[in-house]
Amino acid sequence: MRKRPYRNGEIWDFEAEMELSNNDSRYRQQAVILGLDGGTTSTVCVCIPFNYTCTDNNVNSEDGPLPEPPSVLARAVAGCSNHNSVGETAARETLERVMAEALLRSGSTRSAVLAVCLAVSGVNHPTDEYRILSWLRQIFPSHVRLFVQNDSVAALASGTMGKLHGCVLIAGTGTIAYGYTEDGRKARAAGAGPVLGDWGSGYGIAAQALTAIVRAHDGRGPHTALTNCILHALDLSSPDELIGWTYEDPSWARIAALVPYVVSCAEAGDQVANRILLDAVQELASSVKAVVRRLGLCGEDGTDHFPLVMVGGVLEANKRWDIGKEVINCISKDFPGAVPIHPKVEPAVGAALLAWNFLIRQSRKDAIRS
Amino acid sequence: MRKRPYRNGEIWDFEAEMELSNNDSRYRQQAVILGLDGGTTSTVCVCIPFNYTCTDNNVNSEDGPLPEPPSVLARAVAGCSNHNSVGETAARETLERVMAEALLRSGSTRSAVLAVCLAVSGVNHPTDEYRILSWLRQIFPSHVRLFVQNDSVAALASGTMGKLHGCVLIAGTGTIAYGYTEDGRKARAAGAGPVLGDWGSGYGIAAQALTAIVRAHDGRGPHTALTNCILHALDLSSPDELIGWTYEDPSWARIAALVPYVVSCAEAGDQVANRILLDAVQELASSVKAVVRRLGLCGEDGTDHFPLVMVGGVLEANKRWDIGKEVINCISKDFPGAVPIHPKVEPAVGAALLAWNFLIRQSRKDAIRS
Repeated sequence: MRKRPYRNGEIWDFEAEMELSNNDSRYRQQAVILGLDGGTTSTVCVCIPFNYTCTDNNVNSEDGPLPEPPSVLARAVAGCSNHNSVGETAARETLERVMAEALLRSGSTRSAVLAVCLAVSGVNHPTDEYRILSWLRQIFPSHVRLFVQNDSVAALASGTMGKLHGCVLIAGTGTIAYGYTEDGRKARAAGAGPVLGDWGSGYGIAAQALTAIVRAHDGRGPHTALTNCILHALDLSSPDELIGWTYEDPSWARIAALVPYVVSCAEAGDQVANRILLDAVQELASSVKAVVRRLGLCGEDGTDHFPLVMVGGVLEANKRWDIGKEVINCISKDFPGAVPIHPKVEPAVGAALLAWNFLIRQSRKDAIRS
Repeated sequence: MRKRPYRNGEIWDFEAEMELSNNDSRYRQQAVILGLDGGTTSTVCVCIPFNYTCTDNNVNSEDGPLPEPPSVLARAVAGCSNHNSVGETAARETLERVMAEALLRSGSTRSAVLAVCLAVSGVNHPTDEYRILSWLRQIFPSHVRLFVQNDSVAALASGTMGKLHGCVLIAGTGTIAYGYTEDGRKARAAGAGPVLGDWGSGYGIAAQALTAIVRAHDGRGPHTALTNCILHALDLSSPDELIGWTYEDPSWARIAALVPYVVSCAEAGDQVANRILLDAVQELASSVKAVVRRLGLCGEDGTDHFPLVMVGGVLEANKRWDIGKEVINCISKDFPGAVPIHPKVEPAVGAALLAWNFLIRQSRKDAIRS
C-alpha cells in the first residue's frame, strides 16, 4: 500500500456534503461525545449522544448517582495509535481518521461534538498529554472539552461508569495496575514491559511455559505436559525448534496467545503449569496491592470499599482454573473492601463516559449558578 | 557505506601478488591452520603454524599428552558472522574476508592451509554444518581438512587445549553450558536466549536489577541501592525513565553491560543485588549440572574428574563478589571431580587447536601405518 501523506482536508471532506444535505431537511444535529481507546494493537472510537437536561429533580444531586449512560451511536476501529510504536505523524493520522469515521457513521460532524476523551497507551508524562491536546485543539472548535489520558484510565472508567475512583488491573499481553482517588491522586504498578518484570502478563505466563519446556528438555527442570501440548499447538517436533520459533517474530502478543494451553495443562493437573499460574496470580495481586497501599484506597483500617476493575484476556478466561478469581481471592485477604468489577462496556465507552460524567456535573453546576 | 556485492576474486587477490613475489625468493610457505570463532558480536580468525613431525619418540604416544601447541602467527577480527542475525550472504562474506586477512597477515596463502576449524554461533543442526562445509569446500583445495562447530566447542577447546572432553560454561551477554564426552556424545543446557530462560546470563542479571528498581519504585518490591547506582550510571533522573531507556534499543549486550553495577551493589551489602547474584549462581550451576548428569561426565559414583571450562565476562569478573567462584563451589558440592579451568587462550585459538589436535593424531596414525 502506498503511504499517503497526512492530508487533513481529505479526512473531514464528508462534513461539507453532510451539512449540505442537512440544510435541505429539517434535520438538527444531536450533541455527541467521542471516546477513544488507543492501545498498541488497535484504536477504537465510539460516539455517544449527550442529551441530559437539568431539571428541578436532578439539579441538586451533584453527589448523587449519575443517570444511566446512553448507548453507543457509532463505533469505528483503526490500527495502532501509540506514538512510541508508529511515530507521531502516523499516530495522529490514525486517531483523526477513526474519529472522522465514528462521526460519519453516526451522521454527525465536528460541530455536534461537545467533548472528546482520548485515552491512548504511551501517554505517561504531562508532555505527552500537552502535545496531543494541542493538535486536538486544531481539529475541534474551541468550545469542545478535550481530555487526554493513559489507556488504563479508560479501562478503569469502563468499570466505574466514568467515575475516576478505584483500581484497575489490566492483564492481557502486558499487565498494569492503575489507581485513582476521588481527590485526583493516582498511582501505577507494573506496565513496564516484559524486560522490566511484568511477570503476570499473558506474555509473562507464556514465556515461563516456553522456558519450562526448554528446561525440561535440557535437564534443568522437571518433565511437564506443556511440552507435548505447546509443541503440538505450534506444529513443532522438538523443543530445540522453539528457539527459532520464539525469535523469528518479536511480537509479544504472539507468545501471549499461548496462555490458554498453560491453563489447559494446569487444569489437567500438570504441576509445572500450575506453579506458573500461581506465580502469575501472586504477581498480578502484588501490583494491585502496591497501588491500593500507596493511594490508601482501603482507608485507614484497611477495610474501606473500593472498585477493583478487572480487564484483559488473562483475567477473563473464565475457565475452571480462573486466574481472575484467584487474583481477587489473594487481594481480598489483605483488602476485604475490594469490590471486583468485570466491565460490561469496552474501554472506549469508558473514555466517553469520563467526558459524559464531566459534562453532567458541569450542567448541574451551571444550573445551580443560574 | 555502500553495500558491496559479494566478489570472491577481490578477497583473494593478494594471493597472486604474494606467490609472484615468493617465486623471486628462496621462500617456502609454512603449513598453517586457521581457527575461527564467530559470535554474535564479532568474528576472530587466528592462523597457527603446523610443523609437527612424527619421530620414534612420539609415534606411539597416541593416547599420551600432546605436544605444546604453537603460538599464533596472525589474528584478524571482523563483525558478526551468525547467519541468523545478518543473513547467509553477509555471514559468508565476513568469514571469507577474515580468513583472507589472517592469511595475508601471516604471509600465507590458501595453498599453505592444512586445516580450518570454523566455530560459529548459530550452528545448531547438521543442516547448518553441511551448508557451511559446502561453501568452505569451494574456497579451499580439496586436501584441506574442514571442521564446522558451534562456537561453544571452541570455548571448550580453548580450556582443554583442543581436546573435546568436559563441560564449558559460557556466561557473557547470554549463557550456555556445553559438554562433550571422549566417545563423541554431546549435550547442552540453556543458550536459548532471554525469552526462554537464560536467567544467569549477563542480560538476565541486569534485567533482574532493572526490574528490582521498577518494583521498588512502584511499591511491589523492597528499596534497593541499585536504584541510585544504575540511574546515575545511565544519567536518568527517575525509574519511570528506565522504560524508555530499555525499549529504545533492543540490544541484549547494552543491558548486560550493567552487570558490574549489580556486583558493586552486592559487594556494598545491598540485599536485593545479593539475591539477584545468588539466583544467577544457582541458574548457571544448574546448567552445568544438567549437562554433567546427562553425559555422565562425573562417572558412575559421581566423583570422576572432568574439565569445567569457565568463559565469559560474568565468570571473569574477579571481584570480591566472585560469581565464577560461587558457581564452582555450587557445582563441586554435587560433583567434586569438576576441575575448573579459566582458559589462557581465546576461543579462536581453541578452534585452531581442535584442528591441530586432529592433525597430530592423524600424523601419528599415518606414521604407525607406514
